[in-house]
Amino acid sequence: MAFTPLTDRLIEALQVLPGVGSRSAQRMALQLLERDREGAALLQGALSEALLGVKQCKACRALSETELCNLCSDESRDHGQLCVVESPEDREALELSGGFNGDYFILQGCLSPIDGIGPDELGIPALVSRLESGTVRELVLALGAKVEARATIHYLIEQIKHTPVQLTQLAQGVSYGDALKRLDSGTLAQAMAERKVMTFEQD
Amino acid sequence: MAFTPLTDRLIEALQVLPGVGSRSAQRMALQLLERDREGAALLQGALSEALLGVKQCKACRALSETELCNLCSDESRDHGQLCVVESPEDREALELSGGFNGDYFILQGCLSPIDGIGPDELGIPALVSRLESGTVRELVLALGAKVEARATIHYLIEQIKHTPVQLTQLAQGVSYGDALKRLDSGTLAQAMAERKVMTFEQD
Repeated sequence: MAFTPLTDRLIEALQVLPGVGSRSAQRMALQLLERDREGAALLQGALSEALLGVKQCKACRALSETELCNLCSDESRDHGQLCVVESPEDREALELSGGFNGDYFILQGCLSPIDGIGPDELGIPALVSRLESGTVRELVLALGAKVEARATIHYLIEQIKHTPVQLTQLAQGVSYGDALKRLDSGTLAQAMAERKVMTFEQD
Repeated sequence: MAFTPLTDRLIEALQVLPGVGSRSAQRMALQLLERDREGAALLQGALSEALLGVKQCKACRALSETELCNLCSDESRDHGQLCVVESPEDREALELSGGFNGDYFILQGCLSPIDGIGPDELGIPALVSRLESGTVRELVLALGAKVEARATIHYLIEQIKHTPVQLTQLAQGVSYGDALKRLDSGTLAQAMAERKVMTFEQD
């Protein structure tokens, strides 16, 4: 169906949104232009202000409106521990678990040459300089077990092995609530290899 | 999950888009701000230009970048026939059918007091004045058969019965390819009541 040129451009542009194809983009554009210009103006304003105001935290690469984000500028945290995660959602999950009180470094992805994501896109040079400066005692690798994550971990280790940091990674094994029969064999093999001795409390 | 205030505002604003809830809005905002700032700027520009440049055609209320849209300013069309449709998609379907060469009037919806859509929102006063001016011989009502459409037709007829226009509506009946057993009984009853005499060509 043919609309006006500017409407067509909007339909095209809406497809930068993840999960939006040409049909939903058309429905969105018509809704905005025919029935909800107020909403369209709101969205335009919010986009424009977010583009100007939201940057990356200089230290951890999380979205932040200030040079350092809340977590990185929190003096009560242990800046000698640094935990590398893939995404802000992963950082949030760790924060909610309450198990870590150090700093984070968010890669915002994994190495993926095919998508043009190399070390620079993940901020790895900045991470390496930070480790070289000697302020970090322990680097916790909290990346997933996907192929891309493993490749990223492998690359990272190569880059930082000359620095004075202690490297750790999250324990792997069976999660609370996991059904063994649904676990992949890699995790199961790992959990078996790292099995722990149980102690019985005797009455 | 807590993001920065401007990110939260963007997540909120993205929910003006039809079909976008809080989870997809969050995914969209993070994608735009963390990984696709170029796309975000493109979308912001397209929205802003469309809001400025795309208006409604003065005559038919279709989206148009000029005072009159292509169809309304086409001198080869019969301006004495005016077809009322609910949406630009309906107009497009009729245009593709090739069965009509007059003008259109697009209500952009149906009367729906509960959603705040009254006669003014549908442009009915402008439609009535146009009919009163006497330039239109025939008004074709090509609205659907939903309850809201029927209420709109009823209201329209009340408003225009004093004008010199001839009122027609699309024929109702069995569509090409319809299976009788799947048709609603209203349509079937209508098709039966308006059954036509068939003529046999004799060899």
